[in-house]
Amino acid sequence: MSFNSFGHLFRFSTWGESHGPALGAVVDGCPPGLALGEADIQPFLDRRRPGQNRFTTQRQEPDVVEILSGVYEGRTTGTPISLVIRNVDQRSKDYGEVAAKYRPGHADYAYDAKYGFRDPRGGGRSSARETAARVAAGAVARKVIAGVGISGYLVELGGDAIDRAAFDADEIGRNPFFCPDAAAAARWEGLLDGARKAGSSLGAIVEVTATGVPAGWGAPVYHKLDGQLAAAMMSINAVKGVEVGDGFAAARLRGEENADAMAPGPDGRPMFAANHAGGTAGGISTGQPIVVRMALKPTSSILTPVATIDRAGAATEIVTKGRHDPCVGIRAAPVAEAMMALVLADAMLMHRGQTGR
Amino acid sequence: MSFNSFGHLFRFSTWGESHGPALGAVVDGCPPGLALGEADIQPFLDRRRPGQNRFTTQRQEPDVVEILSGVYEGRTTGTPISLVIRNVDQRSKDYGEVAAKYRPGHADYAYDAKYGFRDPRGGGRSSARETAARVAAGAVARKVIAGVGISGYLVELGGDAIDRAAFDADEIGRNPFFCPDAAAAARWEGLLDGARKAGSSLGAIVEVTATGVPAGWGAPVYHKLDGQLAAAMMSINAVKGVEVGDGFAAARLRGEENADAMAPGPDGRPMFAANHAGGTAGGISTGQPIVVRMALKPTSSILTPVATIDRAGAATEIVTKGRHDPCVGIRAAPVAEAMMALVLADAMLMHRGQTGR
Amino acid sequence: MSFNSFGHLFRFSTWGESHGPALGAVVDGCPPGLALGEADIQPFLDRRRPGQNRFTTQRQEPDVVEILSGVYEGRTTGTPISLVIRNVDQRSKDYGEVAAKYRPGHADYAYDAKYGFRDPRGGGRSSARETAARVAAGAVARKVIAGVGISGYLVELGGDAIDRAAFDADEIGRNPFFCPDAAAAARWEGLLDGARKAGSSLGAIVEVTATGVPAGWGAPVYHKLDGQLAAAMMSINAVKGVEVGDGFAAARLRGEENADAMAPGPDGRPMFAANHAGGTAGGISTGQPIVVRMALKPTSSILTPVATIDRAGAATEIVTKGRHDPCVGIRAAPVAEAMMALVLADAMLMHRGQTGR
Amino acid sequence: MSFNSFGHLFRFSTWGESHGPALGAVVDGCPPGLALGEADIQPFLDRRRPGQNRFTTQRQEPDVVEILSGVYEGRTTGTPISLVIRNVDQRSKDYGEVAAKYRPGHADYAYDAKYGFRDPRGGGRSSARETAARVAAGAVARKVIAGVGISGYLVELGGDAIDRAAFDADEIGRNPFFCPDAAAAARWEGLLDGARKAGSSLGAIVEVTATGVPAGWGAPVYHKLDGQLAAAMMSINAVKGVEVGDGFAAARLRGEENADAMAPGPDGRPMFAANHAGGTAGGISTGQPIVVRMALKPTSSILTPVATIDRAGAATEIVTKGRHDPCVGIRAAPVAEAMMALVLADAMLMHRGQTGR
Repeated sequence: MSFNSFGHLFRFSTWGESHGPALGAVVDGCPPGLALGEADIQPFLDRRRPGQNRFTTQRQEPDVVEILSGVYEGRTTGTPISLVIRNVDQRSKDYGEVAAKYRPGHADYAYDAKYGFRDPRGGGRSSARETAARVAAGAVARKVIAGVGISGYLVELGGDAIDRAAFDADEIGRNPFFCPDAAAAARWEGLLDGARKAGSSLGAIVEVTATGVPAGWGAPVYHKLDGQLAAAMMSINAVKGVEVGDGFAAARLRGEENADAMAPGPDGRPMFAANHAGGTAGGISTGQPIVVRMALKPTSSILTPVATIDRAGAATEIVTKGRHDPCVGIRAAPVAEAMMALVLADAMLMHRGQTGR
Repeated sequence: MSFNSFGHLFRFSTWGESHGPALGAVVDGCPPGLALGEADIQPFLDRRRPGQNRFTTQRQEPDVVEILSGVYEGRTTGTPISLVIRNVDQRSKDYGEVAAKYRPGHADYAYDAKYGFRDPRGGGRSSARETAARVAAGAVARKVIAGVGISGYLVELGGDAIDRAAFDADEIGRNPFFCPDAAAAARWEGLLDGARKAGSSLGAIVEVTATGVPAGWGAPVYHKLDGQLAAAMMSINAVKGVEVGDGFAAARLRGEENADAMAPGPDGRPMFAANHAGGTAGGISTGQPIVVRMALKPTSSILTPVATIDRAGAATEIVTKGRHDPCVGIRAAPVAEAMMALVLADAMLMHRGQTGR
Repeated sequence: MSFNSFGHLFRFSTWGESHGPALGAVVDGCPPGLALGEADIQPFLDRRRPGQNRFTTQRQEPDVVEILSGVYEGRTTGTPISLVIRNVDQRSKDYGEVAAKYRPGHADYAYDAKYGFRDPRGGGRSSARETAARVAAGAVARKVIAGVGISGYLVELGGDAIDRAAFDADEIGRNPFFCPDAAAAARWEGLLDGARKAGSSLGAIVEVTATGVPAGWGAPVYHKLDGQLAAAMMSINAVKGVEVGDGFAAARLRGEENADAMAPGPDGRPMFAANHAGGTAGGISTGQPIVVRMALKPTSSILTPVATIDRAGAATEIVTKGRHDPCVGIRAAPVAEAMMALVLADAMLMHRGQTGR
Repeated sequence: MSFNSFGHLFRFSTWGESHGPALGAVVDGCPPGLALGEADIQPFLDRRRPGQNRFTTQRQEPDVVEILSGVYEGRTTGTPISLVIRNVDQRSKDYGEVAAKYRPGHADYAYDAKYGFRDPRGGGRSSARETAARVAAGAVARKVIAGVGISGYLVELGGDAIDRAAFDADEIGRNPFFCPDAAAAARWEGLLDGARKAGSSLGAIVEVTATGVPAGWGAPVYHKLDGQLAAAMMSINAVKGVEVGDGFAAARLRGEENADAMAPGPDGRPMFAANHAGGTAGGISTGQPIVVRMALKPTSSILTPVATIDRAGAATEIVTKGRHDPCVGIRAAPVAEAMMALVLADAMLMHRGQTGR
């Protein structure tokens, strides 16, 4: 409900700036008795961690998480879980230019317009560095929805889409792009190298799926699972579009093509002929896989000079130097997974609270 | 925060079922002293009203709104505004088949899975009839953000897109499709007649824009204007995708193409070279027009028989008779306008509360 | 979280003014499948209803409740329950004096200071008439916490306390004061007649208890059961103090006197030697009866002239004519019961959501 | 809205356990541009700090606050302010007895009943140590409501009340009891020494006032200023009763005694003859001083043995050794001040948001 919190019963809040001393998350409402330690969280942070290859920013952050509360003898107590990640590689550079001029595509101007003032160091609160805190919180959420499998990956980079027929889940962890198609990953290497060397950047499309979600999570009308997912994904830096199931393509189907025919399943639960709706109907999960896709614009920090204005309103030009991801979409994959887990954990607890199931 | 409410400081809640005695909205947090009467609300309900042509359901609902509280001598008092719309044309038919079988693409199965039970009459709470209540609430929101112009229209129907070069705002009110392109509207008439006669249905893409929004509304990180808009639009029945600005197309742009270069404007405010980001940066409005698009799947109620199961889990088949919109996307245009107004009113009050501006 | 809503998972919102056409409540988050009809709600409204004897206002309101949504074939569906009560005895009198002058002790000045404007008819939104809507919502809450017994009664009127040794639960329904002590009830009759005839008014202390609440409801730190109860009771018109268990008297006990010694109980649950804490520890229920008391100031509407100012700020004098309860504390008893039920229903669902118990 | 958060637009969340590595608060929604540094917060923590005299626990905690986010170059940025206080004197003792047996009057049993499990070290989350985090957050709130003067003090200890005629605001800071009456402070010294030496404990009544609050803050019906204050104060450990203005005494006044007659004031604002209502009417501030009192039970940790049960349900006895405040009411005074500031800051922003004033 407030600005930097998400969720209702399972709720997390994040804090921290790109170049402040630390960033963190507070997870409130976590069920008690779940096994939890730093070792459960660190692997997810490691997947998102920068500086691991030439396709992400060269900022070297170990992203070591510390649990400061809410866990006793290795189990959650039901009280707030405070997670802190220290920043260690805030380069002591001169932020004068960013402070004085607005970088187009960045939040600089909007922050100044809103607050009359801003922390210019690395984008301050608007930096994607904030997503480290969510990934930590997401690892806690995964414990709550044990049994649900979540997978995030890129299906398109710089306009080059994967071949769905070549989809290989094992491939996702083998390349620097979270790409499930080995051939596409190979192509993307060249594509992104080219963009990076040209001082440019590329966009991407990330897909995240959740399997094992039972029917019944989510609720009408303003707490629809799709609505929560859309808000969650839209909160990720650079995301400009979100779709569930067939999404925009569904607008081009006829009614009979879009209908997910149902049949009796082997385990008593229905079997669906397809999953055009991406696992929800009326905002409530159907037991099918939840499928969400999001579009990320190309990184706004580029080496190509762009016309802009300074804080006084005068015309000028800016080149965004510094360390940046040439495609922010890549590291968004583990973040999108975390957001999926966070939304589902809340939906599970809300559902259980209202219905007792 | 709860299931059927939206917004934080300017907050509305809706209630009511398709075939219950009435539906309504409670608007809480409305600023005091605004001129408001039923006559300010009715025109918006009239635009959304069913039964006005052969392209919408033939259910005859006058959708007359009554203000039951929160207004005194024609002005809002700052206390909750209760809006009620009586249902008058709930056809007394037999809902036995819908009660016994699940309509694929509808929320029937999901509701049963969640609640163990459901109101089958016209889809109950999951019916798009609920959107009448939002349109009424949206009319109140428009009073709060006086000065902001909001326009919703279809840019695609059944896969057939408008010609942007032929965009004519005046045309939107002249055809039954809220279509800004007269030639497209003419084509859509045949397209939709064909689908309707074939017992099929079509999807659509709706765009809604807001002009006159000052820079500074919205807030990081989980209260981003884009995130609120995405959640708001995703709550509209049949919406499966939402994008802001260039949306999915932005994922195919290069950094330098996507950059909205800035220049000094005539009135002291910046001028932007483009609006790829759709009027937000970092989740905060930039002063540019807000542009949101959403994809609506084809109506799930079709006359083509579809395989399904009954409540006992046995295989069967269903044909959804009754009165339905052959394209739910059409009447979604005024609903999307209402949601835009409701999100912006809340963002305005939240911004004013935190910053005093 | 907004102004006119209470609760989180089981949440209700009220709307309506004293002399508007109607007032009502929307109950959201109610579990599905509960038997509910108007007949389950009406008896509670009847207990609170005005005009039943000379000790309450002579306004004749039948307070007939209508359920407009959320119930199908006599059972709750899990969707919002809209409850409406029409006002029928808004006397068409001249409100000119109340509109022009501020009644001391009333909210007139505060509303004008806040909103710049107010509905002067019968106090508008600040009237205790609003509590009818809560009593209706409370009847729904009672269904959720079936098994919990709630009882509200007066323990003091005009400074004259009951004799705890003479406490007789059956007596509560036999006198117009919800008084559990027949002798006190007899005395109060004279006391209140005297005050009424003198154009004065009296205060009261109301106690409400809940039995059958299991241990574990409520939560640290800002969602303590005591905190929720305090907020709930303080929202009742004229309440100026709330205490749980021994309350203010506990401040005068020594540690060893205040300790509720524990012993093994016959049913496996602990037996407590006393209940100084009123059924909560650390904000969480202990399985003991919940005991809350609240102090209500005397009705501010009196026939004795009081010095005041008019809207222009000039000195004047006012006598509050019209129909009023000479002791607002009396009809607060059923309202306090409703608030207890509403708080407990929310606490139960929140607890179930977080812990699965 | 969630368990460990308070406030709506100006919102804070706390986390941390008595014997964990640290505790902290996240303040969200703070207006931008306020001068803020650790030096603005530390003095308030120092007032609440334990171990400063023989009347509080001997635990030695420096309570040094660190600001980890939300401040840039000495000014708030409008983003979340993370405040952390490291615990340094968690004595490494054996918690076996507290883990195995329930201390009557403490939250031990209730936590186990709720969560099935608890952190027994120093009471874990239920410890009054959590209030350090609120005091830090409260210091931020004071910046928001600059111009409002807040003062908390004891008016009764162990049943011995101050003499209102001897009230001296300067005296509050001169004795270890936050007592405004020098003679009472002298008496309390003996009283509390006696209780402490006898292994007992005493209760207290704390009063907190706010001056300079303009008319108009707070809102009907479930966001009344009194209701928010009651919830806030009730969240302080050991508080069992809260009253506003005359509180329980008002229940013994007649209508004409309780009426706060109004007269034109010298500055255009009304002058009130008294302040029976404690600065609110209809839940909205009137411009008079806000006056709240709360009752704190005696510390539950006493050296007198008390009958209890162990986790297995068997009868046993417990003596609560360790370091404790013999009267928790004393250090509650700075905490109550913090809560007053936090409630008012939120009320101010909410009012500004809705009304623009």
